[in-house]
Amino acid sequence: MNLLFSDRISIEQVEEGLELAPKFDCNGLIPVVTTDAHTGEVLMQGYMNQDALVKTIETGEAHYYSRSRQQLWHKGQSSGLVQKVKQLLIDDDQDCIWMRVEVAGSGASCHVGYRSCFYRSIPVGKDVISSEQPLRLTFTETEKTFDPKTVYGDAPNPTQL
Amino acid sequence: MNLLFSDRISIEQVEEGLELAPKFDCNGLIPVVTTDAHTGEVLMQGYMNQDALVKTIETGEAHYYSRSRQQLWHKGQSSGLVQKVKQLLIDDDQDCIWMRVEVAGSGASCHVGYRSCFYRSIPVGKDVISSEQPLRLTFTETEKTFDPKTVYGDAPNPTQL
Repeated sequence: MNLLFSDRISIEQVEEGLELAPKFDCNGLIPVVTTDAHTGEVLMQGYMNQDALVKTIETGEAHYYSRSRQQLWHKGQSSGLVQKVKQLLIDDDQDCIWMRVEVAGSGASCHVGYRSCFYRSIPVGKDVISSEQPLRLTFTETEKTFDPKTVYGDAPNPTQL
Repeated sequence: MNLLFSDRISIEQVEEGLELAPKFDCNGLIPVVTTDAHTGEVLMQGYMNQDALVKTIETGEAHYYSRSRQQLWHKGQSSGLVQKVKQLLIDDDQDCIWMRVEVAGSGASCHVGYRSCFYRSIPVGKDVISSEQPLRLTFTETEKTFDPKTVYGDAPNPTQL
């Protein structure tokens, strides 16, 4: 652990205290929820390692750990869609981060081209289940804000099956 | 896999298709971001297993998988603070869920007593880092909305060090 983070000593310290004592999982990662600081929309969910968290705090720009590329990821480095941190919060047991950001350029954060990564909704209700048919999603964003081919070229797609 | 979920066949199907083909991790879990449907505030981040996702879709009330108790968790069962699902969304590679909810009662979702689990912010900036002092959090919620002792009694605290 570096000098900026405190050791996790007690539940009271972690939940009610003023020390930043983040819990990284067995892979050294902490999940991060990123929302648009203005609209409240969830843009993406990613992960940080210790280095990414320090870099985010230091620069005020979102840094993640890319699990597909297995390296530090300064969001927007290839696309220009940098996320400027307006507020950084941590949850009760300090094992999750909420980052409120302003996005540069077209305001998009999704590699598929949409504004948010969450551009499809799941149906809800008893009828949906009782039909025993495969569930069908509904698009909540209908137009892409940028063309991924133009922005990312031939870079490998991060989605893994 | 049950009849409601589709197999993950191709990246195009997962990212651009209408089939719900969620990816559960090696522990059988998918992360869930829960926000207040009205304010946009992130209330908590949790996990669902397949059963919790089906129950959430069927009942329209948030069900999670409790990692500390290792069981299905109908949120609000002991506290009364049930989360009613207004919208359920899934992300591009279908490995994360965003749930927009209305919370019953006092509107709180955090076991410590606050409205949101994210009631403390982390300082950001070059100066913060260069001092090489342990970072100090700032409370963003100052008053608890309920008394955890009254609501949960002697139930074990879910926070783990």
